[in-house]
Amino acid sequence: MGIVLGPNRYGKAETRLVRVHRDGDTHGLVDFNVSIALSGDLTATHLTGDNSGVLPTDTMKNTVYAFAKEHGAGEPEVFALLLARHFVATQPQVHAARVSIESFGWDRLGPHSFRRRGDHVRTTVVTVTSESAQVVSGVSGLVLLNSADSEFHGFVEDGYTTLKPTTDRILATAVDARWRHAGDDTDWAASHEGALDALVTAFAGTYSYSLQQTLYAMGARVLEERPEIAEVRLALPNKHHYLADLSPFGLENPGEVFIAGDRPYGLIEGSVIRDDAPAATAEWWL
Amino acid sequence: MGIVLGPNRYGKAETRLVRVHRDGDTHGLVDFNVSIALSGDLTATHLTGDNSGVLPTDTMKNTVYAFAKEHGAGEPEVFALLLARHFVATQPQVHAARVSIESFGWDRLGPHSFRRRGDHVRTTVVTVTSESAQVVSGVSGLVLLNSADSEFHGFVEDGYTTLKPTTDRILATAVDARWRHAGDDTDWAASHEGALDALVTAFAGTYSYSLQQTLYAMGARVLEERPEIAEVRLALPNKHHYLADLSPFGLENPGEVFIAGDRPYGLIEGSVIRDDAPAATAEWWL
Amino acid sequence: MGIVLGPNRYGKAETRLVRVHRDGDTHGLVDFNVSIALSGDLTATHLTGDNSGVLPTDTMKNTVYAFAKEHGAGEPEVFALLLARHFVATQPQVHAARVSIESFGWDRLGPHSFRRRGDHVRTTVVTVTSESAQVVSGVSGLVLLNSADSEFHGFVEDGYTTLKPTTDRILATAVDARWRHAGDDTDWAASHEGALDALVTAFAGTYSYSLQQTLYAMGARVLEERPEIAEVRLALPNKHHYLADLSPFGLENPGEVFIAGDRPYGLIEGSVIRDDAPAATAEWWL
Amino acid sequence: MGIVLGPNRYGKAETRLVRVHRDGDTHGLVDFNVSIALSGDLTATHLTGDNSGVLPTDTMKNTVYAFAKEHGAGEPEVFALLLARHFVATQPQVHAARVSIESFGWDRLGPHSFRRRGDHVRTTVVTVTSESAQVVSGVSGLVLLNSADSEFHGFVEDGYTTLKPTTDRILATAVDARWRHAGDDTDWAASHEGALDALVTAFAGTYSYSLQQTLYAMGARVLEERPEIAEVRLALPNKHHYLADLSPFGLENPGEVFIAGDRPYGLIEGSVIRDDAPAATAEWWL
Repeated sequence: MGIVLGPNRYGKAETRLVRVHRDGDTHGLVDFNVSIALSGDLTATHLTGDNSGVLPTDTMKNTVYAFAKEHGAGEPEVFALLLARHFVATQPQVHAARVSIESFGWDRLGPHSFRRRGDHVRTTVVTVTSESAQVVSGVSGLVLLNSADSEFHGFVEDGYTTLKPTTDRILATAVDARWRHAGDDTDWAASHEGALDALVTAFAGTYSYSLQQTLYAMGARVLEERPEIAEVRLALPNKHHYLADLSPFGLENPGEVFIAGDRPYGLIEGSVIRDDAPAATAEWWL
Repeated sequence: MGIVLGPNRYGKAETRLVRVHRDGDTHGLVDFNVSIALSGDLTATHLTGDNSGVLPTDTMKNTVYAFAKEHGAGEPEVFALLLARHFVATQPQVHAARVSIESFGWDRLGPHSFRRRGDHVRTTVVTVTSESAQVVSGVSGLVLLNSADSEFHGFVEDGYTTLKPTTDRILATAVDARWRHAGDDTDWAASHEGALDALVTAFAGTYSYSLQQTLYAMGARVLEERPEIAEVRLALPNKHHYLADLSPFGLENPGEVFIAGDRPYGLIEGSVIRDDAPAATAEWWL
Repeated sequence: MGIVLGPNRYGKAETRLVRVHRDGDTHGLVDFNVSIALSGDLTATHLTGDNSGVLPTDTMKNTVYAFAKEHGAGEPEVFALLLARHFVATQPQVHAARVSIESFGWDRLGPHSFRRRGDHVRTTVVTVTSESAQVVSGVSGLVLLNSADSEFHGFVEDGYTTLKPTTDRILATAVDARWRHAGDDTDWAASHEGALDALVTAFAGTYSYSLQQTLYAMGARVLEERPEIAEVRLALPNKHHYLADLSPFGLENPGEVFIAGDRPYGLIEGSVIRDDAPAATAEWWL
Repeated sequence: MGIVLGPNRYGKAETRLVRVHRDGDTHGLVDFNVSIALSGDLTATHLTGDNSGVLPTDTMKNTVYAFAKEHGAGEPEVFALLLARHFVATQPQVHAARVSIESFGWDRLGPHSFRRRGDHVRTTVVTVTSESAQVVSGVSGLVLLNSADSEFHGFVEDGYTTLKPTTDRILATAVDARWRHAGDDTDWAASHEGALDALVTAFAGTYSYSLQQTLYAMGARVLEERPEIAEVRLALPNKHHYLADLSPFGLENPGEVFIAGDRPYGLIEGSVIRDDAPAATAEWWL
């Protein structure tokens, strides 16, 4: 009987990079939050503090900034692949590199003026080994709401159930979605725009009997529209809107005045997948 | 010598209201966070716990939801005035009512589908007494960035100064602006749209030698464009972007790769006012 | 008629300083978040971008770190006074300097090991001019709860009132308190400890008929215990705990099971002051 | 080729429960944030909106409050097991129930008065199926700092390395730790206290050549002290403290004045396990 080191990884999290691409007077702007995690043979540093296999996380940060100059920074999937492949290729003790990027969108105001969008964050998580490269794209913080076409009834009732069935409710959620690509090369910008549009369109267009049904519709729509995507995972908080009881004031409230709740919230999580999807080569979500 | 009660107020903060306006199949959506503070003769409750002059904050919350049904909820300034006037008119012990609203914008996706914008929050702070009604409008969280046309030099140097003068830097800020209206009746939607546009346009169009200069230009532009506004106050964090030093890697960095800093940040605060502006009748910011 | 510059100030916010005081093997630890705001004649930079009167905010940051070395960093009031006086004394164009410090507490684990407390933040706001020095101390984020000895009834009822009077409720709040000292020299550590103890003791020991009554008791207790303090201001959110309705499940709930609410919350704000207190020489809250 | 539903689960997140245990005049206080996730045969609701297998998340919330009355709420592991077993036992379509609890600590001020600690959150994640019950305990937000006995050198250097080796640095982290119990029955309070003490003691007592080494020491100490624990996982952000460069001001800085950084930060993650540990029966962390 003994105590041993289990799975481990380390890296630099949340390196904040802003890259200006200058094309004469017209500037392009890229705004990334980059996190890197390396795994490999790191037993020595854990057991004895021997750091001969440890690339400092400070070096990873430097590499982000240097690569942004050397290679530019455009689609986050490309930049993440570049970084991840660099660490696997140059550090023999590193078996896998995971690079995650949050990308913040900006609208153009002028040739070198910008306004941050703030409606969602584009995400990517890339995992590279010597044998595989898995690319996951996604969005977080995309808040959607339907004020009609949502019902919820026919559910299980037990001794602790007080919820009334409803044929008219607000359905609202903050979409956290990730999708796994079948390969590691596609038109990332078009793919992202298409997947985002599929999510939004399916949410708005689905007459919903449960948020689960909407989740499945959203994931399926992405797969229908984007052949390069193998699987979609969604975590959808059910942002409850409670109908205000105005009867004490002699007022009816036919679906007009709602209390927006903070906590608790429903949380619906699920995956939609092609039945011939290649297996994932790395963990990519819970 | 004795101990006495000084200025005080109380109310309900952060009542979250979502109001659906149904025009047949087409829905309108209003999303407010409402805070109410009443002041008046409240000595009894402080000194003895005699609550005979205390309207419960729970009642204030109920009033928000009931008014949203009875009167609808459109422009936040109108809804705030309605609430504030109600409390002053109906509660004789209340001398002043302040109602603050954060309004969250949504883009339309379909007749009853919406997507939250998230690029800024529209704010209002209304203060009503029996004799006056002061209306303040504003925005918060509006993030703007110029990647050119910003210099900073010619500043004071003392023994603790190490900053190098620069003729080319990123200028970025998260605008927190409030403006005080001369009156209490205007086209609030047009006024807000115009003021917001003036702020954004002035930021993007000002060749800047300091963030203070940009602040003044933004405030002045609002006053030039909107005659109904008497004064503008701005708090502009200087969201520093530090040029990455890539020289150790043999790379030049002519204004292309930046480190986006979190803390510390500069904070520039100032007011721009018409010289014939009516005096404020209530505190509205620091 | 014209447009003019109104009140303004600028500075460096949230400079994060950790100061280790080494007394042989035993170390002391000070953890500050320092914000500086200077005001004076700053018209030129606002109107023309002439920065000849602008001490860079970067210099202010440097001064924080240099002063921490030169003078050490102990009681936050002392460090804030030192910085504020420096800027007023050395920059003729500066008329007033405000220095705010958040101080984070750490418990000692060993001669050079520490564990962050996290139960509250100690605050100070110092404002210095050539003629005055006002010192304000405080706490924020101190969460207190009484599960007995709190009633609320006898309040105003109008057409929107549905709250039921109660003779037994949870009273909970997150104390945000600031107190203004009569002078600028005292035993700051003892003063802070005494004021904090007075707040906590008064909260726990007051049989409460309203949170306003508790607020007054807390402020008055501070003034009774600490002669060096002239005025206390408190902002007390009423962190509502709603009794869960368990009757649908055939269960009684005599004050045992509560729903802790997030929003909305009551917000009670007030000041308790000595009737012979010197007037404040600078804005220090709201 | 087709599109199918993959892994999924749903539940109510962040139900905020405060439970007062009344023993005459002396009250006990329990403060939980409870999240529940159920998985099982949920295909129908995803594909057709048939909710006949869906227990509403509202019912889960009700169950939390009802159980707190019926069974009391003491150790979070016990309460989580009770809830998880209830859902598996009473809902035939549910194959697995995961209950997560955040428990907030309060210090006693008097018989029915309390002050929130805030120094860390105690956590538990329980997963129950018809065949197994896995209990994970943990802490989050525990901030520890050593101002001596930390070195970092002998690391890999590549073309992007600029970090200087050091034999004296601050080592600070915000501990996020979870540990998996071998069984589902122990003295939870003593186990938690012992594990927490082991983590803190090992951090403070380890002369560290890397944060990885400290991580391993912390995990191993827990296993050495607590035979009921099979595995420990830790995520340790390296909260960097940068030595301020005071040389421009003619000042030396021998480990006294530090800049506390926000981002980026190192992130060290790893597991320490008994070599005869039973296998985990459910996902419990990344």
